[in-house]
Amino acid sequence: MRNAFHDDLDRVSDQLVAMTGMVGTAMKRATEALVNADLGIAESVIAADDDIDQVRRQVDDLSVDLLARQQPVATDLRMVVTAMHMASDIERMGDLARHIAKIARMRYPNRAVPAEVLPHITAMSECAIDLAAKTGEAIDSKDVHAALAIQQADEKMDELHRQIFQALHSERWDHPTETAVDITLLSRYYERFGDHAVAVANRIVYLVTGRYGDPDEGLSR
Amino acid sequence: MRNAFHDDLDRVSDQLVAMTGMVGTAMKRATEALVNADLGIAESVIAADDDIDQVRRQVDDLSVDLLARQQPVATDLRMVVTAMHMASDIERMGDLARHIAKIARMRYPNRAVPAEVLPHITAMSECAIDLAAKTGEAIDSKDVHAALAIQQADEKMDELHRQIFQALHSERWDHPTETAVDITLLSRYYERFGDHAVAVANRIVYLVTGRYGDPDEGLSR
Repeated sequence: MRNAFHDDLDRVSDQLVAMTGMVGTAMKRATEALVNADLGIAESVIAADDDIDQVRRQVDDLSVDLLARQQPVATDLRMVVTAMHMASDIERMGDLARHIAKIARMRYPNRAVPAEVLPHITAMSECAIDLAAKTGEAIDSKDVHAALAIQQADEKMDELHRQIFQALHSERWDHPTETAVDITLLSRYYERFGDHAVAVANRIVYLVTGRYGDPDEGLSR
Repeated sequence: MRNAFHDDLDRVSDQLVAMTGMVGTAMKRATEALVNADLGIAESVIAADDDIDQVRRQVDDLSVDLLARQQPVATDLRMVVTAMHMASDIERMGDLARHIAKIARMRYPNRAVPAEVLPHITAMSECAIDLAAKTGEAIDSKDVHAALAIQQADEKMDELHRQIFQALHSERWDHPTETAVDITLLSRYYERFGDHAVAVANRIVYLVTGRYGDPDEGLSR
């Protein structure tokens, strides 16, 4: 039966889905800034992160308000607590997009990424944008299969991350240390973006099935 | 007036303080593994992270149970929600110690860190251990000054992080790319450990003063 609690929870869920849209856009534009050495776009991504932080606070406030007014128990209570954890993960995804934009800004007017690494970075970005979209769908549908699709999509991200480290360690790698440092951090940021999407997925799986994954577990490197 | 709610909340708080002790030890031993290229210690840090994850789940379960049974409102409610966020931050500090141990393990029998960087890594580790201890004290005392001391101590960590990046970018740096990649990630892990301590500090400040910091904000690099 629908009631005021579920209407409130829908509002929280809608905010979370909106956040996934915002972090997907942030990641798309951060990568544009990086690939084209575009200072204006980099600055706009960095500034827009405040909006994501703001929505996250709204989710926290709405959730606490909901707990106070509706006093949910059992699964309803778990759903509100889970929503707050998800907001934290998605906000962190926005931070990672901002970190990428900051590297683009730091190297401007140069491009941080050498030409031969560009296809890899673009592939990681596409993977991240896909993960953000899938995360929104899974939150909206609360469907276990949608959540499992996130875990699968993240395997591709992990593979791309491994490949970049292989390239960094290969004999053909011939760039200054500064570039190696930038690429190391960039690849880590994309990979962590994926890890947080997986954390959201694991929370949805737990909510629906009661089976614990490790919501904060991700690939180390 | 003391009541059942406050007894339960004390139990949650005690678990959080225990977690800060565990992540401080994990960081100490991870650095030992790194500095001495000690595989056994590295393996034990990696294995012990499961225990930290376990306590975090206990905090989550205790908190949800507390919300369901005691139905707190206003500040009491905020305290329980904050405790869950803190558990997430402290668990993540444990993950970062594990990441450091994994780099020690990956390079064994070699040492991942060249001799001239060792004093810096040791200083970052000491800073991290100090931050973990201060985080435990601040959670235990709920004292704003104890929380502000964390923010101050983290400035030293950020300075050490900057210095390592300067060393990586200097002309005197003369090591293979693999080493630059390892040092980049290691420095990032120590710095992020500090950021999560600051996130806990910001939450305590907010709880006591009602003033929002950005609990997830840290230095980008």
